[in-house]
Amino acid sequence: MAITLYDLAGADDRRFSPHCWKTRMALAHKGLAFDAVPTRFTEIRSRCGGAFRTVPILEDGGRQIVDSWAIAEYLEATYADRPSLFGGPAGKAHARFVQNWAQTQLHPQIVKLIIHDIYTHLAPEDHGYFRESREKFLGTTLEQAQAGREERVAGFRAALEPARQTLKAQPFIGGEAPLYADYVLFGPLQWARVTGRMALLAEDDPVQAWFLRLADLYDGMGRRMPGYWPAANAAE
Amino acid sequence: MAITLYDLAGADDRRFSPHCWKTRMALAHKGLAFDAVPTRFTEIRSRCGGAFRTVPILEDGGRQIVDSWAIAEYLEATYADRPSLFGGPAGKAHARFVQNWAQTQLHPQIVKLIIHDIYTHLAPEDHGYFRESREKFLGTTLEQAQAGREERVAGFRAALEPARQTLKAQPFIGGEAPLYADYVLFGPLQWARVTGRMALLAEDDPVQAWFLRLADLYDGMGRRMPGYWPAANAAE
Repeated sequence: MAITLYDLAGADDRRFSPHCWKTRMALAHKGLAFDAVPTRFTEIRSRCGGAFRTVPILEDGGRQIVDSWAIAEYLEATYADRPSLFGGPAGKAHARFVQNWAQTQLHPQIVKLIIHDIYTHLAPEDHGYFRESREKFLGTTLEQAQAGREERVAGFRAALEPARQTLKAQPFIGGEAPLYADYVLFGPLQWARVTGRMALLAEDDPVQAWFLRLADLYDGMGRRMPGYWPAANAAE
Repeated sequence: MAITLYDLAGADDRRFSPHCWKTRMALAHKGLAFDAVPTRFTEIRSRCGGAFRTVPILEDGGRQIVDSWAIAEYLEATYADRPSLFGGPAGKAHARFVQNWAQTQLHPQIVKLIIHDIYTHLAPEDHGYFRESREKFLGTTLEQAQAGREERVAGFRAALEPARQTLKAQPFIGGEAPLYADYVLFGPLQWARVTGRMALLAEDDPVQAWFLRLADLYDGMGRRMPGYWPAANAAE
């Protein structure tokens, strides 16, 4: 039976969720075919009998798993004979740290760099939900939250320094080959590339070179999704 | 032949270098006995024929290795039959990320929280070198660099959030047991505990609970070194 991924989608079928991108990369890493069903924010409750409030949701042979980390654990255990996502228990423990780093140090900054751009990519039926929930969380309007982003991008690039230093010493966070720890950083950067009308990385940044290596993996799955940068690859 | 560690020391034989603490913990993790020879800043050039400008330096059977990461790699390769420091290639690749995170996101903040306190612990012959080199690097006096630290400690605690989130999910950065990735965070915190006259962690912080677990390892090697916090353990 085919694997189904309920995958967040914008108005033009653009797939932008950082967490869904982690799962997409994990599935491809395992060499598993999957059907990525486009799901608007306001459609999530119509999937799986309304059991879940967030995506990604994975359906596999009657099982339903929600949350990208839980899905990665599920895939690693269920498809143990395929390439490992974690490279063993130590790798898994450390990958949790890398994910927590990305989510606490990068995601909040990215939100304020792209939040209104995300809004402009959503289907009309998602506009009300998105604006209301995000403005409540941010304590300001989407427009105000994103305003002045040109001044904040340098701070975001500085926050990537642990990855930058690491990628000067080895080609992937996982070492000689990509592991799930790479995907937890790729996800938020792809989120920004697919929706944000401002390049977040400098062209000569080792993080950008690594990002493009990740985007090229698995038949260019990441690169084939329309996005705004790098300039040579931009497509709307 | 015994292993020798040239270990940075203050006036009262206090061992405070974050990098030497990484190496101390790595040696203990491997179950290797070692002689930690106290070395003042101005004595480093008198060790090993003046070959090195920094500590830790490890001497093992005629071999000399400098730099804590190089020493960890050496110990892992040379004593492969003893408990692994990295838990495999993936763990090692990720540990490099954790080290880069600590060194780029934590060390610079710690410097401005303890730099003058460090100075007060040094042997008189180290005072001139330390003040001159650090004031040149910082662009200000040791006193000015540390001034106002009470206002900066909250920012330091916030920067620990990736570790805090991880340690809510598992007892060690390395997972169920400590690995080198734990020591690269323990080192800078021990540096602050041994020299800094201000507690850097809140008593109820999961990072503090983890730090005390680390300090208790290996017959309490970390805890037995005099330090200023936690209050229940303070000793001058």
